[in-house]
Amino acid sequence: MRILLVGASGTIGSTIAKELEGEHEIIRAGRNGADVSVDHTSVESIKNMYQQVGKIDAVVNAAGGANFASLSELTPELNERGIQSKLKGQVNLVLLGLDYVNDGGSFTLTTGVMMDDPIPLGASAAMANGGVKAFVKAASIEMPRGIRINSVSPNIVQESWDRLGTFFAGFEPVPVQRVARAFKKSVVGKQTGQNFEVY
Amino acid sequence: MRILLVGASGTIGSTIAKELEGEHEIIRAGRNGADVSVDHTSVESIKNMYQQVGKIDAVVNAAGGANFASLSELTPELNERGIQSKLKGQVNLVLLGLDYVNDGGSFTLTTGVMMDDPIPLGASAAMANGGVKAFVKAASIEMPRGIRINSVSPNIVQESWDRLGTFFAGFEPVPVQRVARAFKKSVVGKQTGQNFEVY
Repeated sequence: MRILLVGASGTIGSTIAKELEGEHEIIRAGRNGADVSVDHTSVESIKNMYQQVGKIDAVVNAAGGANFASLSELTPELNERGIQSKLKGQVNLVLLGLDYVNDGGSFTLTTGVMMDDPIPLGASAAMANGGVKAFVKAASIEMPRGIRINSVSPNIVQESWDRLGTFFAGFEPVPVQRVARAFKKSVVGKQTGQNFEVY
Repeated sequence: MRILLVGASGTIGSTIAKELEGEHEIIRAGRNGADVSVDHTSVESIKNMYQQVGKIDAVVNAAGGANFASLSELTPELNERGIQSKLKGQVNLVLLGLDYVNDGGSFTLTTGVMMDDPIPLGASAAMANGGVKAFVKAASIEMPRGIRINSVSPNIVQESWDRLGTFFAGFEPVPVQRVARAFKKSVVGKQTGQNFEVY
């Protein structure tokens, strides 16, 4: 398969690449992507990426962020990053990428545990995750040409624990390898409309 | 209680008003609100509304829309209405209203059945609903001063069946009165972080 991986250089993205590159062609995309650059908060940038990449069998997104802020400090402006990046960035990868994905191909997006198991400072990220999860479930029933769509919801991963663990007090971090395998299940398997929880 | 009801003139909003007005003061808001006008897609307009209204015990929102379009026809531009109105409109009512809600007060937002039981043309609405649901759950753990937050997820209501029933083939519509009672449960009860399903 020819797989476009957006967010290929991150902790999760680079592990997805390792999981898939043995048997598939991986096109690495990101802000400073090895193969193609993309700012997924920009409709024009996403369009340019797809035009450069051409036809693919799968789109995998591991990029997208949101600001961490307590609810009392969360403003509409601070919330905008979650809207533009984690939510619209991912939804627009699908809406603008449909014509580039081959029959029977797939999209796999990223949500996250905070929507199911909320943490302090996490309301904006949870909002974006919940939007992506519901979009995936609803979009799956209308995907043309047998194209599938799923999301993967990672817990905090062991490899990010030193940097982010204080936000996830009491959580049991999971190996990033388990998260990458859920992406593989989405890409290589046949399920659609699912949010694969790796908790 | 002094209750600000945004979207007071709609099918659901007007029924919520009837359900609550016997025992509470209802301030009716909307685009052409009986008591105060608000365009909840505008941060400035929301701020102006709260300044006019002053301190309240509850904010109830029954407003917010999204475009219906098949996934193949849904563009980032068409998706924007769901983002701006149903999702950000509701989230911003909370973020900008926190300081106006009295200790122990509440916010009640609106989601909808399409996020759980997807319908054709409903991916954008489902996305917005899912974002609101996850925001409510996450925000509830950080609300200051005992303020609560819930959402109500209505099925298609019998009173809208003639107009919207074709979108909901096979659904069993519910009386709008049942939906209004779920809002009452949120406002008058003590639960928080919930999405009350009226299916």
